[in-house]
Amino acid sequence: MFASLAEVADFARNAPRFDEVAALAARARQNSLTKPPGSLGRLEEIAEFMAGWRGTPRPAINHAQALVFAGNHGVCVHGVSPYPSEVTVQMVANFEHGGAAINQLCRASGADLSVIALDLDRPTDDFTQGPAMSEADTLSAIARGAEAVNPEADILVLGEMGIGNSTIAAALACSLFGGEPAAWVGPGTGADSAGMQRKAQVIAQGLERHGDAQGMQRLAALGGREQAAICGAVLAARARRIPVILDGFICTAAAAVLHGVSPDLLDHCLIGHASAEPGHRRLLSALNKRAVLEFDMRLGEGSGAALALGIVRAALECHNGMATFGEAGVSEA
Amino acid sequence: MFASLAEVADFARNAPRFDEVAALAARARQNSLTKPPGSLGRLEEIAEFMAGWRGTPRPAINHAQALVFAGNHGVCVHGVSPYPSEVTVQMVANFEHGGAAINQLCRASGADLSVIALDLDRPTDDFTQGPAMSEADTLSAIARGAEAVNPEADILVLGEMGIGNSTIAAALACSLFGGEPAAWVGPGTGADSAGMQRKAQVIAQGLERHGDAQGMQRLAALGGREQAAICGAVLAARARRIPVILDGFICTAAAAVLHGVSPDLLDHCLIGHASAEPGHRRLLSALNKRAVLEFDMRLGEGSGAALALGIVRAALECHNGMATFGEAGVSEA
Repeated sequence: MFASLAEVADFARNAPRFDEVAALAARARQNSLTKPPGSLGRLEEIAEFMAGWRGTPRPAINHAQALVFAGNHGVCVHGVSPYPSEVTVQMVANFEHGGAAINQLCRASGADLSVIALDLDRPTDDFTQGPAMSEADTLSAIARGAEAVNPEADILVLGEMGIGNSTIAAALACSLFGGEPAAWVGPGTGADSAGMQRKAQVIAQGLERHGDAQGMQRLAALGGREQAAICGAVLAARARRIPVILDGFICTAAAAVLHGVSPDLLDHCLIGHASAEPGHRRLLSALNKRAVLEFDMRLGEGSGAALALGIVRAALECHNGMATFGEAGVSEA
Repeated sequence: MFASLAEVADFARNAPRFDEVAALAARARQNSLTKPPGSLGRLEEIAEFMAGWRGTPRPAINHAQALVFAGNHGVCVHGVSPYPSEVTVQMVANFEHGGAAINQLCRASGADLSVIALDLDRPTDDFTQGPAMSEADTLSAIARGAEAVNPEADILVLGEMGIGNSTIAAALACSLFGGEPAAWVGPGTGADSAGMQRKAQVIAQGLERHGDAQGMQRLAALGGREQAAICGAVLAARARRIPVILDGFICTAAAAVLHGVSPDLLDHCLIGHASAEPGHRRLLSALNKRAVLEFDMRLGEGSGAALALGIVRAALECHNGMATFGEAGVSEA
């Protein structure tokens, strides 16, 4: 997709923009439907968002795609997760056999799920010792993320799996938005306070080494393959005007690297849910994004994004299926 | 269902209770599933809630029922709504033809919708002049609500339609929980500040006349047929251990009359969403209930409850469909 990480900035300059005309037509339709104007609240906003990105006043979801990217991380040598790295490959098998939360949530919301395991037997390098990945490795993972996007999808749900990757997310967020590492660290899958202290120390070491990393170089310095793949998928979706639903802290922190290149690169992204992982709210505030759902979830896998897909579907069912005042013969105020 | 309004208190004493054993078994299952314990947040709480009320560790939704009750109100003579009362019957026709928001949301969440129009050509009496309904009228509407509940349903979504009924809701809430009428009044379908002042004045007059109404007598004094039917449906559902999803301000205020008889009568009820109608948050606080969704919706019709049904379905899909650590061969922390 890109010959170098620097090319992402060129993409940003030419990326498709929100279609204000389609969104205004969608709003006009909302105001003609048999309900007090505005009374469907955020469902109306979501319908307008979908209209603007799909470039049509009556957007529909005929094909919802969900992608879960999985990777392993060198920083796990520091004991940043209570789970062993083997769990990443075990959970990928669980996804493939249909036993994980994301399988149930994709079935419930009608999303076509693909799981992409990114060289799980070859963890990234420990970022306290050097860059997590070479530029070539990073570009390859971006390309794999981009290639996974079905150009026919109307909406894309993104998620991730990777033991240790809440440390990666906190490191990226801290590199992007500053503050103390501890302010971005949370329990992840269930670290205790000693574990969280280890995470903050590891991040401080990583930032000391890579504090001058800018733009997409942050991915190579501090990220992982699933983070790079998420960025690739977000960019490929943007090129096709496919709206994206990002999941929680880890998925949002990965995509936030694109925000560091150009803030409007995340304009086509909804945040599926506000995670219970404390860094997520801080990150949403830095990105000026409001999550669709708040459910105290903190699982990853795309679970919050898949749950939010059901809400987006409901918003479009109302938008497309309701009668107008004129059609229904209902008196207006 | 009841020979007198006083009999509801007898029902309350003998009503089925939450099955703690089933709920604990559901929690044990949640803790065995392939995810960090607690990481599905409120989806886990909802699964336990469903287990306790259905009385089984693995509750399923095979049949979701949605009931929308419609009524007309004598207080409309005071200009409490910007819409004419004819809109109630027009919207019922819209429900029957499938053109309203609730039709789309029930289709999206898989609920079987019935709309029950309660003597729309015979509005209740103006409560500033006397009781809104006779006891016989009130009992009849309670019975119609109760009879509408399908005993085979696994979950019941409740909603309402009735021009003027945000005034009824505010009057009931003020009667139940005190405070100034103005604190319970909001724009409803879109009243301006003069309209809201009229609503508060009408409620003050109603409370002056009926301030001594207690328990279920509040329904006769200040309520309406759709409010009574909602109470009947909530009670019939309780008798069958069918969990209920209440909609926004108007639906919750109606059911709150039962809370005034015995607070645990609403233990089997979820609140589908926190409405943008300002009285709803105050009411949820008084009832000590947290809504499933917060979407700035304020439509009624059961719309927020139907949207929340999709979330309850997702919670049970995870609960029943996920593999345990043992089944999936995933290492634990």
